[in-house]
Amino acid sequence: MRLGLCAALCLWWSGSFVLAAEPYVVTASVDPADFALVGDRATAQILVNAKDHPGLQRAVQSLQQDLQKVTGQQLPVHHSVTAGAASDLALIVGSLDQSALLADLVARGKLDVSAIKGRWEAFQISLVEAPMPGISQALVIAGSDKRGAIFGVYDLAEQMGVSPWVWWADVPVKTSKVLYIKAGTHKVDAPKVKYRGIFLNDEYPALTSWVMQKYGGYNHQFYQQVFELLLRLKANFLWPAMWNNAFADDDWQNAVLADEMGIVMSNSHHEPMLRADKEWNRYGKGPWEYSKNREAIYQFWQQGAVRHKNLESIFTLGMRGQQDEPMSEGENIGLLEKIVADQRQILTETFKDRDIKTVPQVWALYKEVQGFYERGMRVPDDVTLLWSDDNFGHLRRLPTAQERSRSGGAGVYYHFDYVGGPRSYTWINSTPIAKIWQQMDLAWRYQADRIWIVNVGDLKPMEYPIDFFLRMAWNPTRFTAGNLEQYARDFATQQFGPEHATEIAWLLEGYSRHNGRRRPEAMTAQSYPLLANQEAARVSTELADLAQRSSALLAKLPKNQQDAFIQLVDHPVQATQALFELYHAEARNQLLASQGRRETNAAAADVKRWFDRDAALTARYHAIGSTSDKAGRWDQMMAQPHIGLRYWRNPEANTMPVLLTNQPIEAADMGVAAEGSSASWPQSDDLGHSLTLPRFDRLGTQQRVIDIFNRGSQSFQFEAKVVEAKVVDASSGKNKAGWLQISASQAEVKTSYPLKVSIDWSKTQPGLNQAEVWVKGTGYGWAKIKVTALDSPAARAPAIQAALAARQNAPFADADGYIAVNASSAQVQGNSTERYWQQVAGLGRFLLDEQAGSMVAVTPVDQLGDTNPVDTSPANTSSAEISPAAIKQAPRLQFPLYFQQAGEFNLQLYLSPALQITPGRGVRLAVALGDAEPQLLDLMANYDDKVWQQSVLDNIRILSHRLQVASPGLHQLRVYLVDPAVVLQKITIDTGALQPGYVGPVQSRRLHPQENQ
Amino acid sequence: MRLGLCAALCLWWSGSFVLAAEPYVVTASVDPADFALVGDRATAQILVNAKDHPGLQRAVQSLQQDLQKVTGQQLPVHHSVTAGAASDLALIVGSLDQSALLADLVARGKLDVSAIKGRWEAFQISLVEAPMPGISQALVIAGSDKRGAIFGVYDLAEQMGVSPWVWWADVPVKTSKVLYIKAGTHKVDAPKVKYRGIFLNDEYPALTSWVMQKYGGYNHQFYQQVFELLLRLKANFLWPAMWNNAFADDDWQNAVLADEMGIVMSNSHHEPMLRADKEWNRYGKGPWEYSKNREAIYQFWQQGAVRHKNLESIFTLGMRGQQDEPMSEGENIGLLEKIVADQRQILTETFKDRDIKTVPQVWALYKEVQGFYERGMRVPDDVTLLWSDDNFGHLRRLPTAQERSRSGGAGVYYHFDYVGGPRSYTWINSTPIAKIWQQMDLAWRYQADRIWIVNVGDLKPMEYPIDFFLRMAWNPTRFTAGNLEQYARDFATQQFGPEHATEIAWLLEGYSRHNGRRRPEAMTAQSYPLLANQEAARVSTELADLAQRSSALLAKLPKNQQDAFIQLVDHPVQATQALFELYHAEARNQLLASQGRRETNAAAADVKRWFDRDAALTARYHAIGSTSDKAGRWDQMMAQPHIGLRYWRNPEANTMPVLLTNQPIEAADMGVAAEGSSASWPQSDDLGHSLTLPRFDRLGTQQRVIDIFNRGSQSFQFEAKVVEAKVVDASSGKNKAGWLQISASQAEVKTSYPLKVSIDWSKTQPGLNQAEVWVKGTGYGWAKIKVTALDSPAARAPAIQAALAARQNAPFADADGYIAVNASSAQVQGNSTERYWQQVAGLGRFLLDEQAGSMVAVTPVDQLGDTNPVDTSPANTSSAEISPAAIKQAPRLQFPLYFQQAGEFNLQLYLSPALQITPGRGVRLAVALGDAEPQLLDLMANYDDKVWQQSVLDNIRILSHRLQVASPGLHQLRVYLVDPAVVLQKITIDTGALQPGYVGPVQSRRLHPQENQ
Repeated sequence: MRLGLCAALCLWWSGSFVLAAEPYVVTASVDPADFALVGDRATAQILVNAKDHPGLQRAVQSLQQDLQKVTGQQLPVHHSVTAGAASDLALIVGSLDQSALLADLVARGKLDVSAIKGRWEAFQISLVEAPMPGISQALVIAGSDKRGAIFGVYDLAEQMGVSPWVWWADVPVKTSKVLYIKAGTHKVDAPKVKYRGIFLNDEYPALTSWVMQKYGGYNHQFYQQVFELLLRLKANFLWPAMWNNAFADDDWQNAVLADEMGIVMSNSHHEPMLRADKEWNRYGKGPWEYSKNREAIYQFWQQGAVRHKNLESIFTLGMRGQQDEPMSEGENIGLLEKIVADQRQILTETFKDRDIKTVPQVWALYKEVQGFYERGMRVPDDVTLLWSDDNFGHLRRLPTAQERSRSGGAGVYYHFDYVGGPRSYTWINSTPIAKIWQQMDLAWRYQADRIWIVNVGDLKPMEYPIDFFLRMAWNPTRFTAGNLEQYARDFATQQFGPEHATEIAWLLEGYSRHNGRRRPEAMTAQSYPLLANQEAARVSTELADLAQRSSALLAKLPKNQQDAFIQLVDHPVQATQALFELYHAEARNQLLASQGRRETNAAAADVKRWFDRDAALTARYHAIGSTSDKAGRWDQMMAQPHIGLRYWRNPEANTMPVLLTNQPIEAADMGVAAEGSSASWPQSDDLGHSLTLPRFDRLGTQQRVIDIFNRGSQSFQFEAKVVEAKVVDASSGKNKAGWLQISASQAEVKTSYPLKVSIDWSKTQPGLNQAEVWVKGTGYGWAKIKVTALDSPAARAPAIQAALAARQNAPFADADGYIAVNASSAQVQGNSTERYWQQVAGLGRFLLDEQAGSMVAVTPVDQLGDTNPVDTSPANTSSAEISPAAIKQAPRLQFPLYFQQAGEFNLQLYLSPALQITPGRGVRLAVALGDAEPQLLDLMANYDDKVWQQSVLDNIRILSHRLQVASPGLHQLRVYLVDPAVVLQKITIDTGALQPGYVGPVQSRRLHPQENQ
Repeated sequence: MRLGLCAALCLWWSGSFVLAAEPYVVTASVDPADFALVGDRATAQILVNAKDHPGLQRAVQSLQQDLQKVTGQQLPVHHSVTAGAASDLALIVGSLDQSALLADLVARGKLDVSAIKGRWEAFQISLVEAPMPGISQALVIAGSDKRGAIFGVYDLAEQMGVSPWVWWADVPVKTSKVLYIKAGTHKVDAPKVKYRGIFLNDEYPALTSWVMQKYGGYNHQFYQQVFELLLRLKANFLWPAMWNNAFADDDWQNAVLADEMGIVMSNSHHEPMLRADKEWNRYGKGPWEYSKNREAIYQFWQQGAVRHKNLESIFTLGMRGQQDEPMSEGENIGLLEKIVADQRQILTETFKDRDIKTVPQVWALYKEVQGFYERGMRVPDDVTLLWSDDNFGHLRRLPTAQERSRSGGAGVYYHFDYVGGPRSYTWINSTPIAKIWQQMDLAWRYQADRIWIVNVGDLKPMEYPIDFFLRMAWNPTRFTAGNLEQYARDFATQQFGPEHATEIAWLLEGYSRHNGRRRPEAMTAQSYPLLANQEAARVSTELADLAQRSSALLAKLPKNQQDAFIQLVDHPVQATQALFELYHAEARNQLLASQGRRETNAAAADVKRWFDRDAALTARYHAIGSTSDKAGRWDQMMAQPHIGLRYWRNPEANTMPVLLTNQPIEAADMGVAAEGSSASWPQSDDLGHSLTLPRFDRLGTQQRVIDIFNRGSQSFQFEAKVVEAKVVDASSGKNKAGWLQISASQAEVKTSYPLKVSIDWSKTQPGLNQAEVWVKGTGYGWAKIKVTALDSPAARAPAIQAALAARQNAPFADADGYIAVNASSAQVQGNSTERYWQQVAGLGRFLLDEQAGSMVAVTPVDQLGDTNPVDTSPANTSSAEISPAAIKQAPRLQFPLYFQQAGEFNLQLYLSPALQITPGRGVRLAVALGDAEPQLLDLMANYDDKVWQQSVLDNIRILSHRLQVASPGLHQLRVYLVDPAVVLQKITIDTGALQPGYVGPVQSRRLHPQENQ
């Protein structure tokens, strides 16, 4: 009953259970005990101690403004109960360390704060009846400390209907004349990760151009908005912009304001001791080489420590070269140890008033620095070790048991944006939340929980993953493999209301899934093959559907939501499509030109059209607000060049692909191509490349196309015929030919004509049937296209029936020369509570309509367990020591497969890129057909930088294994869990004609017992 | 005195000594004994017996018309001396077998015909005083037979100033009011090759479209012009058009007229027994398969024999498939022997009146048919064996001594035009006369002298080589390696007069040399490399010069010569340039596009411009005559598609290359490329391809260029600097750096900027000097270009002086990593009169300005001689049996070379494609450095169809040999003569940086004793 009511009366986004498990604000009161924050008859006053933290006062002012926006009412803020106040209802806000009001309530037994007292950033939101004289009922927001109280305030703001993205994405507040707090409300919350933040990095040209235009520089007016966004997302940590900026030096008020508002500042990994890289350019004397210029650098750092002594900070230790380069001295461990010792000395000198173990310090094990660590360099125990991903979203390393016992703990530095090799990605969001979850869940499980910081580049394009990352940082355990779609709907609901939430979640998932398959910056005309598996066409259809649905929804939304919708949804969806279609058109342009086809120029025009479309979308984004008073609100924010990258760096501006144009000859000129191949007659004859259609078989594709096209400007007639060997039936003596059928024996061709080819299986002979289709139009002789049809006994209905008898699980059919199965289609067997294959929807290189996901290997942290009963020391983990018998006990994915032929076939396992997160342990799984002995496969075998580069460009690692299939019919392929963090996306088996592709062929169809053809 | 006078008074072309060794017609009489054919005071009458051959009567009529055109006078033709005739001067014409007039003169002792009597086609032209009553002086043209007389008549016509090309190329006659025959004239001439003719083949679309338009078909009105052309060129043989035509069946008068005029008819190699291939299509019943359909085919052939029984013909024996394909029965020797036996039987039955050994018969050993012969099939001794080239101008085989003793003798079938693999060539002339001479001289020397027939395709574009071929067929010994240039001047003089003959000869040589390097149809954008050796630019300059000179000359010529000049000279010159520049622009378009350069679109426009230029040239040709009354005279004659061949067959119409266009980005964007490489920064950094300038050395190129270019539409500034290692001079202690110099340290770049790099050799260290040039403009970091300078001790002046001391012959310098020397620059040593290296100017893959030629190996026919003292039987000619000592005695080409370094280097010998003309004998030469043992190299080693295809596309064979150079300094490379018909064009030696190219680098410079740097 209560739930039903809530559906009607609760704030529209509060049905979500990921973002807000305990909705406590309603827009209509159904219980007399409900608290009327802004009620039908009464309105509360706000009480906050004058001496409470200035940052909290700011938060309260912010809340006051939010309330005003939502309800139109301005609630007064008082520092104490005022006699004769208009209201006897109070919203009491305070921090336990500074609020006399709270202390009084606690002292008088009115408030129990035991749930938060002494905790880091905890808050409690509860209703108190008659808390003090003159107040009949109060809503108390109590923080265990300054930020605890602030987060409580912003929790209320969010529950009231103010999105954290109210300013940064123009999300309109959901207005309501009244706001009640449900009777009995008692919410306690606190973060699980200590420091949670973002890094504004490589913030040029988009963010910087915008900041210069709006603020004249990276000053505290700008940063105030960043700080507030972080607080609304209950984050507390920032690495500031550094591309050409120095946070504290550009505007000292930046640092002061951060501290006041509660943002803990640090600098990025290569900017030690709270001094920006750019400050050295401004003030440093001599080279940035410690071995040669120690005194100057020491002094430089000393000034940083002194400057920030009284501001809440984390000191970055160590040293790298300038501009994110390694130190010029090389990987000199002795030197770096000396540097850290000197930095500790500076801190000791500066923080004479306290134990420097209480001064937060971090050593970022980023890029080459991890190498120093792995080769034995150590820093004091109280320094947090900040592990990193590989810049492309794959964690390189997680803490071992020994490392987890360090008092400084560990954190993770992650990327949504990166400038560097093999390819920068900075334009729009290309990291699906499923990937973030899978990686950060690992970080959490391995207790890398002291710092979570993510590089967000220009910030603006990354709203969605930032929201996800910071919310997950607050409470990693609230996010599971099973509720990621719900999170997407929650996010959509919070920004746009519940009506279109499912649709919007689909759009968010859709564009980010596509960009997650291959980042826009890594796209080329060749990325998705035009011919193999019709991949480009399938992707094109998917994106066209998304774009069309997004446009339709944009038109349907209320005007005040449209700006936000463009920013968060429609722009990335449309821009993603435009970029794909640009390269898709380029690929068609190249193929058609190579065949000399008339359509070449139309494809060139398409390239231009999509290039212009991209520019128009950017212009639309830059003009956002033109319908309101905010025209140009986000001008330049999409200025990042993103078309035409050929290496790590973006071009100076979007670069139109080279267009190929031809001039159709003034005659008719026939060309012929076979489906799936770029070869065309007559050149094929000369090159000795015969045209061949992909092989037909009974269980596979039943129609293929021969493309008869014109290279000239005049039409021609073609004539086509089937040339089959005569087959005399032994028993009847009749000619059994005629198994190969074509859709026309002649026709006129102006541009092109698809001649359809099919098989009459009642006339084929067992085994391989071979024939040719001959086509004659213009030119010398006939174009001859080879056609084969494999009529395997195993593909005939009785054989299939026999194999399927009494089988529960329908097997996947070997057809068209391959088997392809998504990992999430496998049967999971042998999972235990501690060691299991876990399905993660939306993770992996799939098309949306496949509704597929990956299977992630989960094991207990540190415990290698029964599949790998050896110790964890690096010397003892070679694969030879894992017993096959033990592997057979491990959780496994079982793929039922139905082979048409016996043979040795290539099995490919599509795996997410993964790195060796545990020292000395491989990244392995094992495969076996049926009960055969499992064979170990290791992602780290034959691994080098080149393999890594390819893997992050392709977002895939593919392992191959030769599969011995002894007989046609049903077989069970088993994939055993060995090491954690292995992510299996899909398998393919090449039984003769698998076409290499990007997403690969569609999943093979299942044979059902009623199979009969 | 006489010569001097002739220079003034002889007909303007008669100074030539190749075309006409004995000029006897003058335009002014200086001797009272001169005969006034058309004199100042008197004019001769023409006397020809009424019963003489009708074909001769036609020739006389033709002469009468020619005289009218030249002098304006119509000379009367009488059959006998008429009383009271206006003139007592007579031109008496007759054949010894039919002319009573001549018989009378001979009987009366007035005329001595012993020089021609009984000879084949001989004629005698002589003055006779008072030959008969009423005639005071006569010019007597006596033929030993019908054609002898006819050729005598046309010899006079030519001498009078009527070019054989008067009709077929609109060459104006040179008019003169008077024509005298020099006193004492007595000319006797006769052909050395018995049948001399052309083959109109694959005569579509050009010739056929024109014939249909002008004549409505291949009828006798058309053929009369062909016959007359042949007679004027003193040829006697024709294979008629057969692409879609049947000579005798299309118009029986074709056959009748040919016989009457004196043209011996046959049919091409695959049309046996005087029946056209197309006749079988019209009348044949059943398949063209002798094993299955003997009766019908036998009858078909019988009809041919009967039909042509009384016409002068050569019967083609044997059988091939239809349409120039092999027989469908395969290479069935037994069957073919049966076919020939049947054909002989038909001839025996048909020619009951004579011994069939006197019926001319030929067996064409064309394509696969030669294989039948080589595997032992034989035909009767009286049948002429017609050997063939490989369709690309290289004789496949020549008669052995045994074969030369056959009564039927041998002939040669040659090609100026071919439709087939690997690439058809049919458009314009692409066979240089030097090549024709070298091949047909071989034919002559090996006594293949019974038939010379050449495939001329559409006839019209091949005027120049046809003229050469047929004149050489008349008298092969009149043409030598030394007088080919003179022939070109003679041809030019005959058509256009002496004034511009040298210039016109240069233009003819120029365009045909270029097309001979690579036929237009085999051209692609990649044929002449853009970067290596700056080849494309060098060829472009050459062709631009030709085109400009041809245009200038066209403008200068009298109006009545312009039509002929366009046809014979200006069209092929301009069209050759346009075609080259089209592909040249395409190559630039591709390179610039790959580098993203601003100039890309300009190059695309260039492609279009040259494509349109080609079309305009064709249109001009088709409109020829528009200034006179003959507009459209040659309409459609240049309709052959010739642009865009990708395999053997031409496209349906000229096909514009795919054009690449780009859109310069709206920013500045620096790219950097190093001379000679397509790689460009910044992509090069990412690909790990460092930019490197070709190595400098003291003896080589002293300046190289770094190309700094712009990919954007806005300008930028670059900064450049040299980064050299510091070099401290051991003795002085001073920094010796500074050896690498650049032309600018900064500049603005709008489109591109050539930064010049050079070396100060006074500051280099011995050995390899290495440094980098760094360039910074837009983008991340510096572009770094590697520069090396090799300062080898051997390249320093004292070392060179020492090596050159007392040397006569200046050696060629190893510089820039290679040595290249043209064969004609070698010293020839050891030539004997029978065995020698013979220089042929204009033969080979050279640029015109190289003024180079090839060296051809000549040996006595059949005699292997001292370098190969083994017998000629196939079993005994392996290279092992030739003694090195014997080779050392052979004629040799000696190349003096100056190496900077010792080492093993790759020697490449550029040889003309050549085939194994002598069974069992290789096509070999031998090489040695200095006195080392000569190493045999064989063109036939590792030879297969693929090698052949490449060789005829490239018009080259390149043999490689590893050369051991033990010490720097002077060495003599010797190339020894072993087998005949080897044609050495040039050598190259890669001493470290030879760039693969097409024409290759320019010849290395010679070091002279005064060398000092």
